[in-house]
Amino acid sequence: MDPNPSHNTGKTTGLDPQSHCMEITAMEVHRVAAPPARTMAQKLGSRLKETFFPDDPLRQFKGQPTRKRWILAAQYVFPILQWGPNYSLKLFKSDVVSGLTIASLAIPQGISYAKLANLPPIVGLYSSFVPPLVYAILGSSRDLAVGPVSIASLIMGSMLRQEVSPTKDQLLFLQLALSSTFFAGLFQASLGLLRLGFIIDFLSKATLIGFMAGAAIIVSLQQLKSLLGIAHFTKQMGLVPVLSSVFHQTNEWSWQTILMGVCFLVLLLVARHVSMRRPKLFWVSAGAPLVSVILSTLLIFAFKAQRHGISVIGKLPEGLNPPSWNMLHFHGSHLGLVMKTGLITGIISLTEGIAVGRTFAALKNYQVDGNKEMIAIGLMNIVGSSTSCYVTTGAFSRSAVNHNAGAKTAVSNVVMSVTVMVALLFLMPLFQYTPNVVLGAIIVTAVIGLIDIPAAYAIWKIDRFDFVVMLCAFLGVIFISVQDGLAIAVGISLLKILMQITRPKTVILGNIPGTDIYRNLHHYEEAMRVPGFLILSVEAPINFANATYLNERILRWIEDHEMEEDVKKRSSLRFVILDLSAVSAIDTSGVSLLKDLRKAMEKKGIELVLVNPLGEVMEKLKRADEGQDLLRPDNLYLTVGEAVACLSSSIKAQSTSHV
Amino acid sequence: MDPNPSHNTGKTTGLDPQSHCMEITAMEVHRVAAPPARTMAQKLGSRLKETFFPDDPLRQFKGQPTRKRWILAAQYVFPILQWGPNYSLKLFKSDVVSGLTIASLAIPQGISYAKLANLPPIVGLYSSFVPPLVYAILGSSRDLAVGPVSIASLIMGSMLRQEVSPTKDQLLFLQLALSSTFFAGLFQASLGLLRLGFIIDFLSKATLIGFMAGAAIIVSLQQLKSLLGIAHFTKQMGLVPVLSSVFHQTNEWSWQTILMGVCFLVLLLVARHVSMRRPKLFWVSAGAPLVSVILSTLLIFAFKAQRHGISVIGKLPEGLNPPSWNMLHFHGSHLGLVMKTGLITGIISLTEGIAVGRTFAALKNYQVDGNKEMIAIGLMNIVGSSTSCYVTTGAFSRSAVNHNAGAKTAVSNVVMSVTVMVALLFLMPLFQYTPNVVLGAIIVTAVIGLIDIPAAYAIWKIDRFDFVVMLCAFLGVIFISVQDGLAIAVGISLLKILMQITRPKTVILGNIPGTDIYRNLHHYEEAMRVPGFLILSVEAPINFANATYLNERILRWIEDHEMEEDVKKRSSLRFVILDLSAVSAIDTSGVSLLKDLRKAMEKKGIELVLVNPLGEVMEKLKRADEGQDLLRPDNLYLTVGEAVACLSSSIKAQSTSHV
Repeated sequence: MDPNPSHNTGKTTGLDPQSHCMEITAMEVHRVAAPPARTMAQKLGSRLKETFFPDDPLRQFKGQPTRKRWILAAQYVFPILQWGPNYSLKLFKSDVVSGLTIASLAIPQGISYAKLANLPPIVGLYSSFVPPLVYAILGSSRDLAVGPVSIASLIMGSMLRQEVSPTKDQLLFLQLALSSTFFAGLFQASLGLLRLGFIIDFLSKATLIGFMAGAAIIVSLQQLKSLLGIAHFTKQMGLVPVLSSVFHQTNEWSWQTILMGVCFLVLLLVARHVSMRRPKLFWVSAGAPLVSVILSTLLIFAFKAQRHGISVIGKLPEGLNPPSWNMLHFHGSHLGLVMKTGLITGIISLTEGIAVGRTFAALKNYQVDGNKEMIAIGLMNIVGSSTSCYVTTGAFSRSAVNHNAGAKTAVSNVVMSVTVMVALLFLMPLFQYTPNVVLGAIIVTAVIGLIDIPAAYAIWKIDRFDFVVMLCAFLGVIFISVQDGLAIAVGISLLKILMQITRPKTVILGNIPGTDIYRNLHHYEEAMRVPGFLILSVEAPINFANATYLNERILRWIEDHEMEEDVKKRSSLRFVILDLSAVSAIDTSGVSLLKDLRKAMEKKGIELVLVNPLGEVMEKLKRADEGQDLLRPDNLYLTVGEAVACLSSSIKAQSTSHV
Repeated sequence: MDPNPSHNTGKTTGLDPQSHCMEITAMEVHRVAAPPARTMAQKLGSRLKETFFPDDPLRQFKGQPTRKRWILAAQYVFPILQWGPNYSLKLFKSDVVSGLTIASLAIPQGISYAKLANLPPIVGLYSSFVPPLVYAILGSSRDLAVGPVSIASLIMGSMLRQEVSPTKDQLLFLQLALSSTFFAGLFQASLGLLRLGFIIDFLSKATLIGFMAGAAIIVSLQQLKSLLGIAHFTKQMGLVPVLSSVFHQTNEWSWQTILMGVCFLVLLLVARHVSMRRPKLFWVSAGAPLVSVILSTLLIFAFKAQRHGISVIGKLPEGLNPPSWNMLHFHGSHLGLVMKTGLITGIISLTEGIAVGRTFAALKNYQVDGNKEMIAIGLMNIVGSSTSCYVTTGAFSRSAVNHNAGAKTAVSNVVMSVTVMVALLFLMPLFQYTPNVVLGAIIVTAVIGLIDIPAAYAIWKIDRFDFVVMLCAFLGVIFISVQDGLAIAVGISLLKILMQITRPKTVILGNIPGTDIYRNLHHYEEAMRVPGFLILSVEAPINFANATYLNERILRWIEDHEMEEDVKKRSSLRFVILDLSAVSAIDTSGVSLLKDLRKAMEKKGIELVLVNPLGEVMEKLKRADEGQDLLRPDNLYLTVGEAVACLSSSIKAQSTSHV
């Protein structure tokens, strides 16, 4: 509380107080400038560019000769042209190892996930053959292992089952699944082409963690059918109906199935645990599912156990993907459902694919272009839908294995694809005796990794509100439905953002003694009030949603300030300084607010001073301020320090002249 | 970077360059403090308080004796107890003059607006009798003139007409209107009681201006029926269907009606113009409608003009409001429509009432408590619905007249109410010959004031986006429907806020020579880059919706910076300073962003430095930062100036030691 304002001048010392402000004005007070003039078109252009092309995809073309530009353009569309020419035998060796590793995971998981989507198991294998080839040409991630994934399979299966029974009307169900895949692809590619990729950003990390954990539990619950050997399983997905159905049908439990299930589940979990402890032993968990399948198939075959109540996959047709474009439905009574399913599975699988791609790109320090990836994944699903594949994306668990196994390029996807092709052509008879219970165990082991308790704990520690969002997603998914849980969580997240805007923080600033730094009084204990001044900082854009609140809140700050005893004694309030440094935008309501505040304060004999309006804000104030009331040079300053120094010297000059 | 970590702790004052940073440290570097610890409950409490009780309604009770508290509480609920005891004859004289003035306006407008709502004209008079009495007891505005208003009447009439014909099923229509009024009141009072008043803030000024102008045009179009004397008028509201219907029925136009309409319209518009030019002559426009009614009634009576095709109101029942609680519908097939109508008319009339109250409160420098006003208006409508009144609120035009006529307290509403009562008891036979065409002219004159072209021009000048919102509301109302136009405008306004969050601005700061002020390089021409530094300011809260964008954008700023020739020559980039002064909040995604950025930059040999994280941000970073990576003392500063000073001295020290 230094009453002598000269502590703000720093460089000059020992000047007489009366001429203080002038001296400051001459030497140090900096004018707030208006930002350079730009036309309406320029502004619109830069805003559109920042919205739709934040990555400035054309900048690599700048200043290049025409031929080079064509090459760059071709490389932009087909990333394979970028790394293809430099591909070497050494890279190929790495890719073969990783490709074979993920193939050993993809075959059992493909069969399992297709069953999760209520589709014929062979569709899961088809989906591990064509899409990886498409992605290898178009995709820009080097680590993504492409194929069917658990959550998208679950959602597709459960949504389509609302209208069509997968058991009674198997062909129609498959047709709807392929049509949904087409729409998912179309939607994904359109998002990329229209550069609307930021839509998936609205699924926050907290939402996804809650959603994934909930979905993992729902998926695991569905596996109780095969793990317990129940024949008549409920068609509902929620926690309550599934558990009640399971415990009302204890008579259908088969001890042989349960025994086998427990054994393989333990085996797979131990393998997973080993690989998690020692990342170098990634092949233990990567190979375990295939080993389990082979082992269990042999056991069944040896003991003829299918006759003892253990259900098996049954015959799978040999041969490559049959064409399926004639199976796509673009009209008919189920079109609405198909489009909705496509939209939701599309956005969910896109989110997973992009997140996985970005995670590994960050580890290896290369860039993945979100919008380009969306086009790649979208085209992959469009092609897939006409070659008997259902919705695919980059799978997290398989991509991690791919990365750990040393994948260098998308060739590992090609190797996987070729391996699956060989299996499709020659190995199908071997799966005839594979028991469903092992597939259930494989799914459970895969989805357990989606329950990320350390991440949930970190969220709890950092941000309680995000934790609530996570919990809503989780509880919504397990108690209501997968789609509703997601919608609730996204809704709450957006509501939080809107609430932050509607009730922005206003804080009182105080001077940190010996400096011209002004900081939050309630945060920095050493900060002190300046007598005669109330310095407020508004920490949000000012717009229609908060102008009324800010008006009331600021007037109340003034009242509170006037009421406080200790202030009364020293000096009455003369200036309210509004620090606008954190006000990134303003609209017409905000401009009116400032005008109204100024009028209201004038009636109390208080002057409103604005500090550091940013570019856009300054521009709008200037346009609104024809009478030069808001932006007079004596109530507009570049820093709080300069405002306080200059204004307190004017108070002093006044009081001296009165004496 | 600096192998010697002691530069943050030293306290020496030498000036040789090597120890420069130490010297700064001793003299100027300030630590970023963590905000004072608060428990979860305290934080939740203060956030809830700021959301629902931003006006801190209980603060006047603090430190008062119990008896005084009871008095204050009673005064809080019934504002009449505040001003009642000091009421004087002088105040009463003013209130009588203004009360009689608004009564002369209220009687013709009440009849007209009831016709606009497709209700019997007498309901408009009933609605000008009971609600003003209720408001006089509960309301806190001294200028509000209460009664039916044009836009709420229009919306109620058009919404209910979707399901019930006002001509064929007159009684049911009235019952639905009264029930809607009840729900409107219930909704309004609940908003106030639940302190959710901020919901009406989402109707921005721009939206309202566009909406009002559109509604004024729709209302005026409806008056073509009575102004042209058309008997078979379309039941649609839009611009196109009304105009096409009017010009397809030129055979129904009645020249007598048109002549009379034009004459009175000119009379009323001239009166309005006179009063606008000279506010002292407010009584000219205030008296003109009643004069027109009397004059036209005499004319009709004298010339027996009702036989020449000029339609008249017809007989009105004498007597006060009949009770109507038995007419309220709380079940049945129209309940959904009734509740929806109540909701929309409730929110629209609330918005008008609160806005009018606040406008005049600001002029006379008193406070109007939004939530309390909502309860008052809500109760007024609930009481109204059981005494044959339809939805009422504070009308803008009549309140302005009230204010100009010198109203001092809500007693002017009581005087108006008593005058209406006298009219209801004794003057009803006189209205029998009042022509409908004059009522049409009165409505057109009243709603013309809702088209505020200067305000629209001001919005165009200040904020083009707000202008677009306004235009959407306007065009939506006149071409689609009143409700849809409003919904579209609110949707666009909210989308704009979300887009601002999704694509926040990041600006490069430069040093203003000779100071330690850092400002936007592209705004302040004198600002200069500091070699070796890239100083970025993020101007929005960092959350899930923008973390991905910010990550890409910041990395691109770094790339751009490294590409620029002139920077290359001088020195390579060593530090990226993120000024977080404008980052008002952060969530877990935002925290991850900062961690990811730090990792990505480390790989390029660049250090990430944070400046001035605000309270909440600092707190979350601290909780997230167990490894002390983000918040090491050498990469966290209170001001950009200190960060640059300290870090550039460390570069210098290093380069000197290399030499």
